Amino acid sequence: MCQMLGMNCNTPTDIVFSFEGFHRRGGLTDHHADGWGIAFFEGKGCRLFIDDKPSAESPVAHMVRHYPLKSKNVIAHIRKATQGVVQLANTHPFMREMWGQYWIFAHNGDLKGFQPAEGQYYRPVGCTDSERAFCHILETLRARWSQAPEQQQLVEAVAILASEISQHGVFNFMLSNGEFLIAHCSTQLHYIVRQSPFNSAHLIDDDITMDFSRVTTLNDRVAVIATQPLTDNENWQSMQNGQLILFCDGTPLVTTHKPGTPARLIGMHCQDQTDQDQTDQ
Amino acid sequence: MCQMLGMNCNTPTDIVFSFEGFHRRGGLTDHHADGWGIAFFEGKGCRLFIDDKPSAESPVAHMVRHYPLKSKNVIAHIRKATQGVVQLANTHPFMREMWGQYWIFAHNGDLKGFQPAEGQYYRPVGCTDSERAFCHILETLRARWSQAPEQQQLVEAVAILASEISQHGVFNFMLSNGEFLIAHCSTQLHYIVRQSPFNSAHLIDDDITMDFSRVTTLNDRVAVIATQPLTDNENWQSMQNGQLILFCDGTPLVTTHKPGTPARLIGMHCQDQTDQDQTDQ
Repeated sequence: MCQMLGMNCNTPTDIVFSFEGFHRRGGLTDHHADGWGIAFFEGKGCRLFIDDKPSAESPVAHMVRHYPLKSKNVIAHIRKATQGVVQLANTHPFMREMWGQYWIFAHNGDLKGFQPAEGQYYRPVGCTDSERAFCHILETLRARWSQAPEQQQLVEAVAILASEISQHGVFNFMLSNGEFLIAHCSTQLHYIVRQSPFNSAHLIDDDITMDFSRVTTLNDRVAVIATQPLTDNENWQSMQNGQLILFCDGTPLVTTHKPGTPARLIGMHCQDQTDQDQTDQ
Repeated sequence: MCQMLGMNCNTPTDIVFSFEGFHRRGGLTDHHADGWGIAFFEGKGCRLFIDDKPSAESPVAHMVRHYPLKSKNVIAHIRKATQGVVQLANTHPFMREMWGQYWIFAHNGDLKGFQPAEGQYYRPVGCTDSERAFCHILETLRARWSQAPEQQQLVEAVAILASEISQHGVFNFMLSNGEFLIAHCSTQLHYIVRQSPFNSAHLIDDDITMDFSRVTTLNDRVAVIATQPLTDNENWQSMQNGQLILFCDGTPLVTTHKPGTPARLIGMHCQDQTDQDQTDQ
């Protein structure tokens, strides 16, 4: 299966440290060598780098490692092809526009017999189950709402879709519109929230230690989400099977889970959270 | 105004030589320093690199210059902001999916009072006249056809839209779906078709000469389209004001122009052209 990496923060942050370990899983410390990609939101804009070379030897990965782009929402993916040949059109993450926002999606897993009807608004370009699932999610949301709905409504709808699509197989995914990042765990997904007091972290895939207290401020909060933990001296949380979490400003906002029912969004929505941060400062 | 560069070929070709001169216009040999971008189609997939740094000093441009990506359709753009602040969301080229294909668009010019109604299928993310024009073109095409129409119908519809939008101001643009590249000249756009017998070319913006006969085969045909000629020893064609050309497999397919009427597609359509090439070999 593929490897995913996500980051959601309350202030634009570079992902160089996490990406340093992560990119090695594409051909060096793991066998996912069928292309890779990474998307960085910057305001409403989004940079999407995809490459069909293994990430461990990709010139694009070399550039990303040495160009510390700062972003509040990042999704990266290293592919181990299960459905669809190795080609650029099948490389994650995928991007579409909905409601005047870019949406980014990456998937880890394998869906059997998932062939939704052709969409009016969104259609896959490549031939992966993953892009079909992404287009089906957006198609369903866009058909229901012509403008962006409230976050509570949106996350409930995505949770229902995630639950439905999961009936076809393993469906770990990340989805972001640049304001928040939704992570759905079907079988394996881990996260950690780094905030004050910051400590040092040591990569599993390379002998590199980063002292975050030297590069952060007291108000910074960074959530990192990954298929497998990236560091060996931090307390990564393992998401439950079927759980969906909305990360906003570095905070996980859905933490309850009842099997068979959609997740409920607990806590403030993203805009309130931002207002709260501003008041606190 | 901005600078545009396009390439359309009958065999995947790298754009390193043309880009070498072109990228210098973003802050070195010209003053277009408000970001830049380049899109490479590879099969149905598309790599889109955008950067809000001037291209002459961009790490992404450095990577593109040293990573000879081969593509049959490329569109690049260096921005001189006229409408919309300098930010990633306003950086060309823009990308959307229509009919299960990626579409790429770049614009040189300035449209006054162009505010089309909000689209059902495509909406701008940034705040440029250019992205509004791109979304309006796609919206109109998608509303008319739920599946890709014949190339003749498509190019006529795009020519009518180009003529209408041009009433708002300068509207030089390039549009590609990875199969063909449409170039519309409102005020300035040049092109050259390189084919056997290949010669040497010398850049205007840098003292670099390339002998194409050493890197090509007899069957190769490459059209390069640019706001201003990139070389000083080749015979660049100046497009007429109001003219729209569809480039397919390196061949310009619309060459007639009657002011006030849409361009007519002259010659074989792209698929026929490809078949013809295969028969000839």
